[in-house]
Amino acid sequence: MTRLWYGGDYNPEQWDPAVWKEDVDLMRQAGVNLVTVGVFSWSSLEPAAGKYDFGWLDQVLDLLHHGGIAVDLATPTASPPPWFSRLHPEALPVTADGVRLTHGSRDTYCACAPAYREAARGIARALAERYHDHPALAMWHVHNEFGTTCYCSLAAARFRDWLRDRYGSLDRLNEAWTTAFWSQGYADWTEIEPPRKTQYLVNPTQYLDFRRFWSDELLAAYLEQKAELRELSTVPITTNFVFGGWVPVNHARWAAEVDVVAIDHYPDQAGIGAEEQTAFGADLARGWSGGKPWLLMEQAAGSINAGRRLHTKEPGRMARHSLSHIARGSRGALFFQWRASRGGAEMFHSAMVPHAGPDSRMFREISALGSELPRLAEVAESNVVAEVAILWDVECWWAMQGTHLPSSSLDYLAAARSAHRHFWRAGVTVDFASPDADLSSYRQVVVPSLYLISDEAAANLAGYVQNGGQLVVGYFSGIVDPDLRVRLGGYPGAFTELLGVRVEEFHPLADDEVALSSGGRGRLWSEDVQAVSAEIVDRYVGGVLDGKPAITRREVGAGTAWYVSTELDDATAAELFGLSTSPVEVVRRRSGETTWTFLFNHGDAEVVVPADGSELVVGELPLRPGGYAVVRSP
Amino acid sequence: MTRLWYGGDYNPEQWDPAVWKEDVDLMRQAGVNLVTVGVFSWSSLEPAAGKYDFGWLDQVLDLLHHGGIAVDLATPTASPPPWFSRLHPEALPVTADGVRLTHGSRDTYCACAPAYREAARGIARALAERYHDHPALAMWHVHNEFGTTCYCSLAAARFRDWLRDRYGSLDRLNEAWTTAFWSQGYADWTEIEPPRKTQYLVNPTQYLDFRRFWSDELLAAYLEQKAELRELSTVPITTNFVFGGWVPVNHARWAAEVDVVAIDHYPDQAGIGAEEQTAFGADLARGWSGGKPWLLMEQAAGSINAGRRLHTKEPGRMARHSLSHIARGSRGALFFQWRASRGGAEMFHSAMVPHAGPDSRMFREISALGSELPRLAEVAESNVVAEVAILWDVECWWAMQGTHLPSSSLDYLAAARSAHRHFWRAGVTVDFASPDADLSSYRQVVVPSLYLISDEAAANLAGYVQNGGQLVVGYFSGIVDPDLRVRLGGYPGAFTELLGVRVEEFHPLADDEVALSSGGRGRLWSEDVQAVSAEIVDRYVGGVLDGKPAITRREVGAGTAWYVSTELDDATAAELFGLSTSPVEVVRRRSGETTWTFLFNHGDAEVVVPADGSELVVGELPLRPGGYAVVRSP
Amino acid sequence: MTRLWYGGDYNPEQWDPAVWKEDVDLMRQAGVNLVTVGVFSWSSLEPAAGKYDFGWLDQVLDLLHHGGIAVDLATPTASPPPWFSRLHPEALPVTADGVRLTHGSRDTYCACAPAYREAARGIARALAERYHDHPALAMWHVHNEFGTTCYCSLAAARFRDWLRDRYGSLDRLNEAWTTAFWSQGYADWTEIEPPRKTQYLVNPTQYLDFRRFWSDELLAAYLEQKAELRELSTVPITTNFVFGGWVPVNHARWAAEVDVVAIDHYPDQAGIGAEEQTAFGADLARGWSGGKPWLLMEQAAGSINAGRRLHTKEPGRMARHSLSHIARGSRGALFFQWRASRGGAEMFHSAMVPHAGPDSRMFREISALGSELPRLAEVAESNVVAEVAILWDVECWWAMQGTHLPSSSLDYLAAARSAHRHFWRAGVTVDFASPDADLSSYRQVVVPSLYLISDEAAANLAGYVQNGGQLVVGYFSGIVDPDLRVRLGGYPGAFTELLGVRVEEFHPLADDEVALSSGGRGRLWSEDVQAVSAEIVDRYVGGVLDGKPAITRREVGAGTAWYVSTELDDATAAELFGLSTSPVEVVRRRSGETTWTFLFNHGDAEVVVPADGSELVVGELPLRPGGYAVVRSP
Repeated sequence: MTRLWYGGDYNPEQWDPAVWKEDVDLMRQAGVNLVTVGVFSWSSLEPAAGKYDFGWLDQVLDLLHHGGIAVDLATPTASPPPWFSRLHPEALPVTADGVRLTHGSRDTYCACAPAYREAARGIARALAERYHDHPALAMWHVHNEFGTTCYCSLAAARFRDWLRDRYGSLDRLNEAWTTAFWSQGYADWTEIEPPRKTQYLVNPTQYLDFRRFWSDELLAAYLEQKAELRELSTVPITTNFVFGGWVPVNHARWAAEVDVVAIDHYPDQAGIGAEEQTAFGADLARGWSGGKPWLLMEQAAGSINAGRRLHTKEPGRMARHSLSHIARGSRGALFFQWRASRGGAEMFHSAMVPHAGPDSRMFREISALGSELPRLAEVAESNVVAEVAILWDVECWWAMQGTHLPSSSLDYLAAARSAHRHFWRAGVTVDFASPDADLSSYRQVVVPSLYLISDEAAANLAGYVQNGGQLVVGYFSGIVDPDLRVRLGGYPGAFTELLGVRVEEFHPLADDEVALSSGGRGRLWSEDVQAVSAEIVDRYVGGVLDGKPAITRREVGAGTAWYVSTELDDATAAELFGLSTSPVEVVRRRSGETTWTFLFNHGDAEVVVPADGSELVVGELPLRPGGYAVVRSP
Repeated sequence: MTRLWYGGDYNPEQWDPAVWKEDVDLMRQAGVNLVTVGVFSWSSLEPAAGKYDFGWLDQVLDLLHHGGIAVDLATPTASPPPWFSRLHPEALPVTADGVRLTHGSRDTYCACAPAYREAARGIARALAERYHDHPALAMWHVHNEFGTTCYCSLAAARFRDWLRDRYGSLDRLNEAWTTAFWSQGYADWTEIEPPRKTQYLVNPTQYLDFRRFWSDELLAAYLEQKAELRELSTVPITTNFVFGGWVPVNHARWAAEVDVVAIDHYPDQAGIGAEEQTAFGADLARGWSGGKPWLLMEQAAGSINAGRRLHTKEPGRMARHSLSHIARGSRGALFFQWRASRGGAEMFHSAMVPHAGPDSRMFREISALGSELPRLAEVAESNVVAEVAILWDVECWWAMQGTHLPSSSLDYLAAARSAHRHFWRAGVTVDFASPDADLSSYRQVVVPSLYLISDEAAANLAGYVQNGGQLVVGYFSGIVDPDLRVRLGGYPGAFTELLGVRVEEFHPLADDEVALSSGGRGRLWSEDVQAVSAEIVDRYVGGVLDGKPAITRREVGAGTAWYVSTELDDATAAELFGLSTSPVEVVRRRSGETTWTFLFNHGDAEVVVPADGSELVVGELPLRPGGYAVVRSP
Repeated sequence: MTRLWYGGDYNPEQWDPAVWKEDVDLMRQAGVNLVTVGVFSWSSLEPAAGKYDFGWLDQVLDLLHHGGIAVDLATPTASPPPWFSRLHPEALPVTADGVRLTHGSRDTYCACAPAYREAARGIARALAERYHDHPALAMWHVHNEFGTTCYCSLAAARFRDWLRDRYGSLDRLNEAWTTAFWSQGYADWTEIEPPRKTQYLVNPTQYLDFRRFWSDELLAAYLEQKAELRELSTVPITTNFVFGGWVPVNHARWAAEVDVVAIDHYPDQAGIGAEEQTAFGADLARGWSGGKPWLLMEQAAGSINAGRRLHTKEPGRMARHSLSHIARGSRGALFFQWRASRGGAEMFHSAMVPHAGPDSRMFREISALGSELPRLAEVAESNVVAEVAILWDVECWWAMQGTHLPSSSLDYLAAARSAHRHFWRAGVTVDFASPDADLSSYRQVVVPSLYLISDEAAANLAGYVQNGGQLVVGYFSGIVDPDLRVRLGGYPGAFTELLGVRVEEFHPLADDEVALSSGGRGRLWSEDVQAVSAEIVDRYVGGVLDGKPAITRREVGAGTAWYVSTELDDATAAELFGLSTSPVEVVRRRSGETTWTFLFNHGDAEVVVPADGSELVVGELPLRPGGYAVVRSP
């Protein structure tokens, strides 16, 4: 049976058993069909080492099953109980400046500690043994938001092993890390430490490798649990990827190891920015999933954590955000959490059932959406249609975070967001893709600040252009190889030949803008571009670069390669890409001959959308401000 | 003999004995009648463990006594000498992130260290033995500004004992702390730690309990010293409460254990704000003292530490601040310190005798005030008259400091200050009272953001209204119980029935304001209020809450209960409370039939104050700008 | 042979030997005649304890020699190799809050660790033994930018020894540190610790002494290496002084121990401020050198690290900055570094040969300057002409950094920069001098905020005035003696008699300005000045000081002593000093009858400079905007 999942994290251990029955009744009323159980239940399930208490969970799973609600059963390994820390103090994590953290929050473990790994496998196996054939079980949810790192000596030892695997020899490591600079040459593997607090700037490759290492180490921890579960169970296994201003692991690589890509997504802007962030996060998730449907595992029902305050979502916004994720490939819409906590650190985190109880606008909107989703179930296996790709490589981001860059305005995430925003404002759907992916299906590929790029990926992009692609490379791209070694002879290094340009000098901008001869404007950054074999599309006006190329184009084989040496503002980018702003966001999913068009009105006025030959699936037409509709055609 | 105390901290150990004689002469010239001696004298009195040197102090006390100056003798336990730290390194305090502090400043001790407690009792007993019958002795001053906390293992052990006393069982603690959230369930008391640095958000009840614990632990330390002194001496014993943007202990509770409530008060605003802060701090002190006279133990003579600079007090301002404290119940005006230090960390702290010496404006103003105060001695035992009370509960403040709130604009101190300011601007004197106090004497009670409230206190407030009181409850009140467990079913929880309102959702505001239908304005915060059984007094205009209730009123028994769901600006609050701004602050003290009226002109123009049938005690009439007067009637 | 040095840091170990030959060819092409080798080569020269590898360095030195390029050979002791830290973990530095740093950056050592000192002497001796008679050797460069401090127990022990030497007795130390305040009296030397993290404000004299101690301790470490080198070699020995917003050691004192004063200089302002900073730093270096020629050892070729971004130097600016240093006494212009690193923490640090390679504007400008400098060699031994001195005392700066001052606007460096800027804007060259220097050759001496001054220095300044000098003392001067003990009786303490003024009270200003009766303006600070025996030159207008003296003057003997009690803005200072703004900076060097005039046009228009009877040595006339010229006369 194809369906869209609807529900959220359900933490019954926070409530008196008397509430559980009411919970299931309310879930049915709200159309909930999947809940994630057990994410933070370790101390309830194993109140002392090796002493399990599954009684309450048996009861909860039975209740849910009788209510027709499926269960995404979590291993609770993201938050070890206090007894664990007391038995294994060496498994508490240590910060870069040597502070060993204390339990009393969550994620207080070092995944390099053997005691932790053993305990995690143990609780996973115990859950698998007990519940592998429970009829409510629909999915396994390993851990929560993998991403906790540590600088302790156990981590140091694992890091050394990882480096030995990666580099084979110290000579190779010394070269990759450029240890000749500042007298850092390593003569023995044991001399290598994590990038702990040091006197001055850290070695950037050491920093990058430490992030690569932790992504791999956490993946190994995930795979250990997955193996325990798989041994006894055949239901899909996943873990929820966390994404925000921070990406702790290489999700594109992890995606190969989950049965469905699942993300948690919490935009942090109160205004229209949250809609834009929603699209960005959902497109990224689909990119990680290789275009296949994925799952929105967590979102906040009622509010947006807009920095210094929780912004309450306006009526209809929860549904609009949910639909926006589904439009972009999500197999449903889940929330953290079902019922707002009475106490604890996140007691004001919004929930499907707020503190006020089910007699509330929140719960009524939740129920309304729940009643609407079954009609959309038909889209569950369809694919999203996109003709433009933006490249995304988390290693490039990490590399830029760990390097002392020529300007603090160089920000990989911001550059990627800008590129995405240019298309989103025009209502055009884009995919995210890895630099080494097959790009042949895209008419256009945009490359925001791809500072780090391998030779293979560079060749991949050159081939894409040769075969007819339109490639738009942004400033500060192609500079270093995967060792963070600068490609000499002129920037943008890996791209100089393809683009036909050569840059000797960067000109980071202060807070001002720079004018272009087209009438457009650049921000943050500029470069002294020489158009060696490229055509000049736009020029800088005024300042030290007056008259020099700002944007170039070069015909290569059947395609074209563009270089944009500054951060374009929205209007200038739209002009360049031939995009026109639209208040209506349009996303298409397709399966065979059928197309589902998702429409969102982000403007202030009602919009009449032509839907000839189409049939309204959910929503209303014409589109109210803030409204949405899904139409099927033919 | 009734008198007002006048003087300050006297630290003769900083000066050559040759200066001491001049000091006493100058004190007499300045009208000083009380000095606090010994606050930081531990290393002078006990230069090595158990080796006392009282000779110099004998000499100083004799000199003072012969000069007719009484002594408030301090135990020097707030600053243990270096030898103590060297002998007992375990008694040095540890921060939340595990740094053990070093001596070389002050307050470098952990009051949970047995060695510290023993040493503190020892020096207190030694002082009591030597000076209990010294004729200069008028008061004992235990320690200085109790408030130093610590996260070491000794503190952890004491914290566990305190928790065991409070909760009796781990089940009860687990419930109170909502440890089911994030898998924090405790299975053994030894698993509990102070809220040290951890991975993410701290458990809010753990945080609150740690603050409650330290207040109680420090109180125990105080009581031990008090017991030593009381055994040998009958003079009053106190300690100086510190108050600023920070309140380290529960002064309302401590007040029961001091013979006179004494506060240190350092406003931090250069402009008129310092006058307002003076009133606020003095009213709080009187509240802690249960309305009885109290004592201003420390203030700065010449300057206001206005953040990034010391603002020099304008001519007359030192006297005005002193009188303002006395008007509100202080038994005098004392300063830190008598003579400005020649060196050390606070060498630029202002003093009664500045670096320039007695030939200075500062000392002349000190002397002028000193000659005026004896005429005011008649007010010393009178009580301040107030018909309005503002509720104040430090546990509520701590609770809000330790919780991840829906908005960083939620600030208990700021809300209390706002409420106080509304009345202060109108020249109306208010009391501060505890939520569980007898409020029957007040015509109006104002409740700023009382996030945490017990059932008993809620019943007390309901009873107050029932019996005819006017209760004005502010936004974000009644939300949690003393365990920080949310009161379910709708906000403002404990007050929904009394106020006849129900709130499902908060709407924290960004930096903008919100308009009200009355023409008034709210700031920082708003709520989606349903007037269930209340009358609507004012409504929101515009925005998502357009037309919804902002202020409500409900008649209950003989009284009225108001709800104000936003932070009103000064003008709107004045309108609501029927207050009119006045440049003249009026405070009344009364004893039997006699009333003393204190008048302060905060405006820019001279004011003629009618004083029919009254007699001028000090100051001048008409009131100059910045001037003050005290008149007696009848 | 007299010549100007030209070149920079050369780090061949970062490159394949195949590049070395090209390097030497390019150096010759660029006119390079001196390179600093070995600064960060420890791990290359001694890859394991006691195991040396000099082969590569032999080859490099021979190549350079055959290319005619002299070598400034560095001891690599600023960056011990990883093996060293692993063998001697006690030699890793510890921060004030107790964090022991890890290797992986640079400067990860504590110079108080015997193991470090021994290893440093060892590698210095090994270099001396191998290269003392190498024909390329022209200079020894000990270490790099001495300035790393540490708070570990080894440092604590050395600090105690230093204090014992300084104070002789604990009584004297207790007095100097005013330990009677806050009960800090020391009864045993072992009780004294570095000013580690403590509860509240640190003892300011303890802080100052710790900085004095480290300057002396590092000097001892330098002298040990110098002794090793001198034993075997007679070429000049120096070390590169670092200067920025931070001065780690007492360079004025160190200057006596180097054969040539050498500085690294990195201005941090993108605009004209960098030109001003260049002049300031160069004048300071000449001051440390006692007026004798000195050497610019490091500057950045292509960019200015303007805080959040690297500003690319405009065409011609690199040469202008280089000439500006030479004008002020530098024996040449050297850069960090020759070739931009391919990797490592400073890969984007600009270089003489940029990532783009020699086919670049950067390298062309480097070569152009290199071809011009030989014509300037004739100035190498001449002296700079200055008639005005500004006093500079790093201990005063440290004292102000460690004291809780009456205003955070009190900033010694900023005050000194202001004074320097007033003259620089008028194109007038000034010297920097110590407060105890012979000042008789200057017509005017300016004293910015000399908070700390000894009796001897105060007498020196009084003598200067008595003998006809014009002394201008700035606000917040003369306050404390070298123990940081306030000079009582009225500010400005040490200067009250000389200036004929007395100040009882400071009046730190908020962000606003204060008007003066002359029409001028003061900022940041004001004082309530009484003109006891001084003439009033200017008065405050408005505010609490309305009508009171702001600037005074007193005739003393043959000279005049001025007091300026506020921070004057540029225009007001120019008026006071009789200076007029000029876009052309003029600096003169003189030797015998010959004068070389260096001219720099900082304006936007071409300037015709009269050069009658002069001969153009380098540059062009008339002066282009940004242009320079050096003319010789007669």
